[in-house]
Amino acid sequence: MMRRLIVTSCSVLVVPERGLCRVEADQDILVEDGVIAWLGPAGSGPDPAGAETVDGTGMVAVPGLVNAHTHGPMVLMRGAAEDVSVEAWFNERVWPMEVNLTPDDVGLGAELACAEMLLSGVTAFADHYFHAERIAQAAVRTGIRADIAPTYFSSRGRAALEESAATAAALHGTGGGRITASLGPHAPYTVDDADLTRVAELAREMGVRVHIHAAEHLEQTESSLARRGVTPIGVLEQTGVLDAGALIAHGCGITAADLPLLEAHRDRTGVACCPKVYLKHALNPLTPVRSLLEAGVAVGAGTDGAAGHNTLDVWEAMRLIALTQKQAERDATWMTVSDTLRLATHGGARALGLGDRIGALEPGRAADIVLVDLGGPHCRPVHDPLAALVYSARASDVRTVLVDGRVVVRDGRLLTVDLPGLLAEIEARVPALLDTSHGTAVQHYAP
Amino acid sequence: MMRRLIVTSCSVLVVPERGLCRVEADQDILVEDGVIAWLGPAGSGPDPAGAETVDGTGMVAVPGLVNAHTHGPMVLMRGAAEDVSVEAWFNERVWPMEVNLTPDDVGLGAELACAEMLLSGVTAFADHYFHAERIAQAAVRTGIRADIAPTYFSSRGRAALEESAATAAALHGTGGGRITASLGPHAPYTVDDADLTRVAELAREMGVRVHIHAAEHLEQTESSLARRGVTPIGVLEQTGVLDAGALIAHGCGITAADLPLLEAHRDRTGVACCPKVYLKHALNPLTPVRSLLEAGVAVGAGTDGAAGHNTLDVWEAMRLIALTQKQAERDATWMTVSDTLRLATHGGARALGLGDRIGALEPGRAADIVLVDLGGPHCRPVHDPLAALVYSARASDVRTVLVDGRVVVRDGRLLTVDLPGLLAEIEARVPALLDTSHGTAVQHYAP
Repeated sequence: MMRRLIVTSCSVLVVPERGLCRVEADQDILVEDGVIAWLGPAGSGPDPAGAETVDGTGMVAVPGLVNAHTHGPMVLMRGAAEDVSVEAWFNERVWPMEVNLTPDDVGLGAELACAEMLLSGVTAFADHYFHAERIAQAAVRTGIRADIAPTYFSSRGRAALEESAATAAALHGTGGGRITASLGPHAPYTVDDADLTRVAELAREMGVRVHIHAAEHLEQTESSLARRGVTPIGVLEQTGVLDAGALIAHGCGITAADLPLLEAHRDRTGVACCPKVYLKHALNPLTPVRSLLEAGVAVGAGTDGAAGHNTLDVWEAMRLIALTQKQAERDATWMTVSDTLRLATHGGARALGLGDRIGALEPGRAADIVLVDLGGPHCRPVHDPLAALVYSARASDVRTVLVDGRVVVRDGRLLTVDLPGLLAEIEARVPALLDTSHGTAVQHYAP
Repeated sequence: MMRRLIVTSCSVLVVPERGLCRVEADQDILVEDGVIAWLGPAGSGPDPAGAETVDGTGMVAVPGLVNAHTHGPMVLMRGAAEDVSVEAWFNERVWPMEVNLTPDDVGLGAELACAEMLLSGVTAFADHYFHAERIAQAAVRTGIRADIAPTYFSSRGRAALEESAATAAALHGTGGGRITASLGPHAPYTVDDADLTRVAELAREMGVRVHIHAAEHLEQTESSLARRGVTPIGVLEQTGVLDAGALIAHGCGITAADLPLLEAHRDRTGVACCPKVYLKHALNPLTPVRSLLEAGVAVGAGTDGAAGHNTLDVWEAMRLIALTQKQAERDATWMTVSDTLRLATHGGARALGLGDRIGALEPGRAADIVLVDLGGPHCRPVHDPLAALVYSARASDVRTVLVDGRVVVRDGRLLTVDLPGLLAEIEARVPALLDTSHGTAVQHYAP
């Protein structure tokens, strides 16, 4: 039997592929089997008899936000690596702590990450981490959508590469299609060219994409050029990773010479911009968002892991992209509220390879719908709902969240997770997680 | 009869004048007649018989945040001037809209501003606007603390200057001492030297300070140097404004040569840094916070008006200061979580000339206390409560707010304002506020 649901009498954020976004007042959204079947003026659509009703009065329905790059389980290390350099962050704090993580820890962290994201209106995320199957389980259980890449370092050996590909193959398409997988080589400085070439082959064979950190900052690009005469993006091109389709995390070190390589693969390339961690790590320049968009490359908003970003709040990431891009380009008229909202929704969807399925509220797309309340005193009066969404709204203004047409957050309460129980389990693990007396690390950072 | 109140069993953020902040667990705070009388381990203090009790279990008590520079009533124009240059923002949007403002509008806007700030844990603010008496009334009614400067342009004429000083004199010390006043010449490019000299004289006579925009960005400094061979800070020194005591808004254009002038007046000089508007206006460089702090000048976090900042959220301002200062100095180890929390509390208090009265939770200081809930999934696990406050917490995590020992927000509800009624009054004024068909402006921007 068909599952039917109707969101009644809401405003709807319309996100076209280019040009101005707009908000249409007093709309109904009819959902059938998880897909938007009809959207239009309230009361004028097909008979919603038998449909579950979600009252959208006073709310703005926005496409679920997309977190285009994170390491969900790192919420376990939130706030445990502050005020340190990039090198110390990796080598003295995070990579030593990650030695402590058990698969169960990853599952707990992933569940908390999914909970935090759903409560804040993030309905899809691209993850890159160890024990990917535990992340997929958490995503399935909590009701969120995810593209999951099992992290691989060449130091783990070729068998581990094949194993990560097998994990990805097993996950891809599960959860009623809500879970997709990518291959997850860590970065060109931790995965050698032969492995990258094999990853690209496997990705093409499997029909999945490659999620990889590359050109994270300009010093990495310069180091790559000095060591081997090619930029990190050049390495991705030479090894076939760009051809297979890549989600590139960060890209602050993308150069002008890299742009034609990315443009040539623009139909299958995405870049995730995570400005909070760039600022925290005192990086400059930032992701060249303007040039990437001009080249037709998809750009999404990401949070990176919470050991750097502290939250998985895509509202915050989106706002910081607008603010930092205006400053970086010295142009207050650029990265408009429309461009910013498009980036956090449709841009993220494209970056995940899901540009046809999610990222906008339109018939035929999955019903990943977030109802936001712009009625708080920090948003009023609402002269411009686009500006209110980008510059005033907070994650806590999210009231109701649907993924694939299923209500997972209602009136600010997450229906799919026992949060107090989960948090108690996590707190019990804290001492073991923080203990770095073992003196080892999952990897050494020296890009 | 003495008013007594006790906040029981909370954690307390301790903000020393220098060095690391810390959080002490399980404390009571005893308040007598609005002043912190005792603070220490729960249950070990004086007999709280007869005291009103606020249960602080599970909460972190932080000193009320200080908004060191705003134009409160501009919440009425929130979101009405997006994606435009600084020049267009002033000349095409904001200054034409301000022509429409009646004293009643200013009162409504000020009340909304106070409501937004109190709900988000801001207990004191420095305001600079027209119809200052209406802002003071709103502050008194809502229960917040404020330092209010009546805005003056030389284009209004000398009589208006004297009138603004009389307004300040009438407001200073009202509201049971919660209201202080400053003189409010707009900026060195809109107020001539003779007027600034008179303002400084009046301030010294009245025992108040001068709140002024100066060196807002580097181009203003360069323009001043080109026109008259002196920087905006130099003008403040020459006209006696620095000697009188100044709260300088922005200061992104403060030069190395200005620093000795500021250092010489460091006991009475504050600078308010409002990074969200600098990024939105694509400014670079930003306020030289590190140099100012090294010179011993007080630096506070400000939001500026909501026509630029969209919110009056000092959590957001504080976080952006940490993030942007790390990047600007290319030093991830600088602007630590301790430094950031100090800036938003004690730094702001000093910037307002209230460094002895507020800004820390210590016996003898006013009981401006904010209880924050770090129990949400976006803050957990809390490895470092300082990091959670700076990088994870949201304004919506504020539960209870006291100003001068009076509970004004309890469990997230503001006790002193009829918000639905206020918002309805404001919405009715929106069309008139936005109408710029009159073709005039309160002033022309050409620094």
